[in-house]
Amino acid sequence: MSKSFTSKFNGYAERVRRSLRDQPFMDKMLRAEATRIEPGFVEISVPVHQDILQPHGNVHGIIASAVADSAAGYAAQTLLPEGYDVVTVEYKINYMAPGIGERIIAVGQVIRAGRTLSICSADIYAESGSERTAFAHLVTTMMAVEDK
Amino acid sequence: MSKSFTSKFNGYAERVRRSLRDQPFMDKMLRAEATRIEPGFVEISVPVHQDILQPHGNVHGIIASAVADSAAGYAAQTLLPEGYDVVTVEYKINYMAPGIGERIIAVGQVIRAGRTLSICSADIYAESGSERTAFAHLVTTMMAVEDK
Amino acid sequence: MSKSFTSKFNGYAERVRRSLRDQPFMDKMLRAEATRIEPGFVEISVPVHQDILQPHGNVHGIIASAVADSAAGYAAQTLLPEGYDVVTVEYKINYMAPGIGERIIAVGQVIRAGRTLSICSADIYAESGSERTAFAHLVTTMMAVEDK
Amino acid sequence: MSKSFTSKFNGYAERVRRSLRDQPFMDKMLRAEATRIEPGFVEISVPVHQDILQPHGNVHGIIASAVADSAAGYAAQTLLPEGYDVVTVEYKINYMAPGIGERIIAVGQVIRAGRTLSICSADIYAESGSERTAFAHLVTTMMAVEDK
Repeated sequence: MSKSFTSKFNGYAERVRRSLRDQPFMDKMLRAEATRIEPGFVEISVPVHQDILQPHGNVHGIIASAVADSAAGYAAQTLLPEGYDVVTVEYKINYMAPGIGERIIAVGQVIRAGRTLSICSADIYAESGSERTAFAHLVTTMMAVEDK
Repeated sequence: MSKSFTSKFNGYAERVRRSLRDQPFMDKMLRAEATRIEPGFVEISVPVHQDILQPHGNVHGIIASAVADSAAGYAAQTLLPEGYDVVTVEYKINYMAPGIGERIIAVGQVIRAGRTLSICSADIYAESGSERTAFAHLVTTMMAVEDK
Repeated sequence: MSKSFTSKFNGYAERVRRSLRDQPFMDKMLRAEATRIEPGFVEISVPVHQDILQPHGNVHGIIASAVADSAAGYAAQTLLPEGYDVVTVEYKINYMAPGIGERIIAVGQVIRAGRTLSICSADIYAESGSERTAFAHLVTTMMAVEDK
Repeated sequence: MSKSFTSKFNGYAERVRRSLRDQPFMDKMLRAEATRIEPGFVEISVPVHQDILQPHGNVHGIIASAVADSAAGYAAQTLLPEGYDVVTVEYKINYMAPGIGERIIAVGQVIRAGRTLSICSADIYAESGSERTAFAHLVTTMMAVEDK
């Protein structure tokens, strides 16, 4: 399922970074960073801190959704022309194991790029040092919209 | 699809409220409150504030997921015996319209209560004054686990 | 979530019936019939016969999907102007109990009607005499397309 | 996401073939065949024939679901001990393109194997000669049950 895509917009990586900074929820509350941006592929990392933990010490499941939805959406966004953004039509997430680690990593990829609708997936991991354990898996439909 | 359930635990409402207070993400970051708790039914409300907005002024979609996942999960939890809690196996969310309002409300309901797995839905609204507009719809599988 | 919709096309019911007859899989293999057609609402019934049973005597789960996908899609179709049809973008189905009965009934409803994308649900039942037991629940995104 | 699994039951491949023959819907109506069976991996092929076509000549979408649900479920089944089978808890399918070809192929894989619940995916293709085009993508939760 790994594919090679080309972007229609040279500034696709900067567009992802700027968009991420513009979202207080991702930027301020989760301190999310895009750690890899390629056409059809975006990796986002979030440091684990007290406020996103559950009582038992593992990361709240919704954080997996937040980071994965972003990584998948930005993966779709990298393939869009200048002046376009994506909105999430729907997504589905399966949880695999408690998220325990220093960082939550979501690896978003485009499965099929359409003119209006794109289908993307994201694998979410909890990472400690260089060890990754599977946390969740997401599949989503993204819709291209003109930026206003 | 509206059903009448009975709880196996008299303290079901207090268990929901205590659990919500124990989650910093829901309690501190989102300031979520359970506004209605009945067997098989939980409504959760989150006030809209700056940190959960998108650049265009509407509420970040992930907030709908967070509130709905909680409302649906607690709806399932109300039907469990003392000493049990739920974990989210998976959920699916469809977005309907931008979330614009003063509060985000999620109405969680049990569709089918099983001994181990329960299926729940949640309707998510953006509310201003007494007017509600549909924001999103979630369906989820919840699993009962013994509390440790 | 029950809403009142109005159709933009007087022939909406006949369009559903004709389309159902045009699909050999639904018409010939499953002998599906539309038993109720209203704006935003379609009920489809399939008689249980040997070929759709599992070894243990219950109905193959995929039949629930087939009937529900049709009922939900036709519910969306009833609201479209003349010359339009729907295609399924995606759907998600949760199974609730083994499908045991004389008929499989799917009740499809529009949750939100958009110009291009509509969100619909379907409740699927196994029916014996006048008794219905829940079999499955489906949520779907349908896309309007011009008929060719 | 490609992993190496080992089976707990030497007869895992024969169990898949026997189970497929026992389902009239898959065996008789769809003429499905398991073309590759490995631990955590099952490929199923269905020949395209008149009864599974839509009016416009492409394969009915529900066939993608049927073949994918089977391939994913059998992929999970290969990892179970003797005397166990799987039931589908839920699945979600995204359609990518019209299914046009001579065969429908579903490649099912286990993403995460749990003792009770397993998460699997399936990629569905329409194949003509040796050329495959993406038809749909499915993600599912399967539950292990003791065979009766």
